[in-house]
Amino acid sequence: MSGHLAVVGLGPGDARYLTAEAEDALSGAQALYGYGPYLDRVPPRQHQSRHASDNREERARAAAALDHAARGARVAVVSGGDPGVFAMAAAVCEQIETGPEISRRVEVTIVPGITAMLAVAARIGAPLGHDFCALSLSDNLKPWDLIERRLDAAAGAGFVIALYNPVSRGRPWQLGAAIERLRRHLPDLTPVVFGRAVGRPDEAVNVMTLDAARAAPADMATLVIVGSRETRVIARPGLPPLVYTPRAAVAAEVSA
Amino acid sequence: MSGHLAVVGLGPGDARYLTAEAEDALSGAQALYGYGPYLDRVPPRQHQSRHASDNREERARAAAALDHAARGARVAVVSGGDPGVFAMAAAVCEQIETGPEISRRVEVTIVPGITAMLAVAARIGAPLGHDFCALSLSDNLKPWDLIERRLDAAAGAGFVIALYNPVSRGRPWQLGAAIERLRRHLPDLTPVVFGRAVGRPDEAVNVMTLDAARAAPADMATLVIVGSRETRVIARPGLPPLVYTPRAAVAAEVSA
Repeated sequence: MSGHLAVVGLGPGDARYLTAEAEDALSGAQALYGYGPYLDRVPPRQHQSRHASDNREERARAAAALDHAARGARVAVVSGGDPGVFAMAAAVCEQIETGPEISRRVEVTIVPGITAMLAVAARIGAPLGHDFCALSLSDNLKPWDLIERRLDAAAGAGFVIALYNPVSRGRPWQLGAAIERLRRHLPDLTPVVFGRAVGRPDEAVNVMTLDAARAAPADMATLVIVGSRETRVIARPGLPPLVYTPRAAVAAEVSA
Repeated sequence: MSGHLAVVGLGPGDARYLTAEAEDALSGAQALYGYGPYLDRVPPRQHQSRHASDNREERARAAAALDHAARGARVAVVSGGDPGVFAMAAAVCEQIETGPEISRRVEVTIVPGITAMLAVAARIGAPLGHDFCALSLSDNLKPWDLIERRLDAAAGAGFVIALYNPVSRGRPWQLGAAIERLRRHLPDLTPVVFGRAVGRPDEAVNVMTLDAARAAPADMATLVIVGSRETRVIARPGLPPLVYTPRAAVAAEVSA
């Protein structure tokens, strides 16, 4: 007998971002696993057990949830944003591949959610309206020189760049170093968006230049979008500015 | 007097992907604008006018919707997937920037949605679990040699690549050419996912190798995810395979 595991994307912080599919997966679960602050977003339900764990215990959480499901329960692992983007879905797959054989017999459903870059982009216009990439600045799981190579490749080829995990307590200098690296490829006036806690009461979305981004504060709840050479800012009378990247591009605008 | 324009992401094809915010924006609109098949997904409501237009008339649709909102109405433009990813939000911003002055006085809200790559990824595991990029293969709005440079940059630096707009009636060869280009950087056995019409009755998600992808059929409703050198396939007894990209990476696995 084997149960079912759902890996559920809650979106960025507010119930208005929840999809109907995610709502159904949460209400049908007998047990919920997740990082404490994400679990706190899910309203309590009777006959549903809750298993909170620390942010950095993703692999242990995946193992516990799979084991619970393998014993016949309907289990949901909750994830902020989209579980497939720098979140729990890959950790669950790693555990399925390398964990006990029984974990490969558990039926698994991934329920997508609004990932942070989509929510931040929507708040400010359409900065991801042209080719873009998503890059985690955490060097816990990959070497810093690989991150630099990816920044070079992405900015050099004209991708807009969404930076996930820009800063944490243990990684204070990486965002500044990334911005410096990007200045090799992009003009000082390139638009940059810092989106913090979108959809939560303390939400803050700020537009600045790449030059100013060097000194801008950020934390674990911040998502940074660095424009390309074609990203534009529209000033509007009495309304906040819009940032967008036009759908059309010409080769000459990309750095050599 | 000026009304309000919402640019609303419907997600990929089924109401289960709709967020609560999108539902509210649709139900509160006096007029809906959009590509016909997207409008058809929205249940009819009394006292709500509907304005369908062709797929390639994005700019004219944006202009008409902004003009309607500028005259005081609550207007919604519907978009498949997420409006900020190769969709209507950038077209609306272009029109706001370059259109009549009144369009810069319209209050605009972008409502994010589940974009195709997130839905396809969720169906198959976690192929976007590590750094990735999203690239439109349409050369209607940018030159083909720029697309090739971006494919080189992304694959060479170890990004997973989501290909939007791989094929259309007027662009029959671009996907095949892109796959050939990627073979310069990636092994023949690199996992590739073709996701078609996810969330609709005719959904089909196929896993294949990069080598086999050269001859695989695709159409306008297909989203292609090309793995990196680290993307893996997990075989499971009695269950479909899972495709995922581990969270950790080492520099040596990236091509020179």
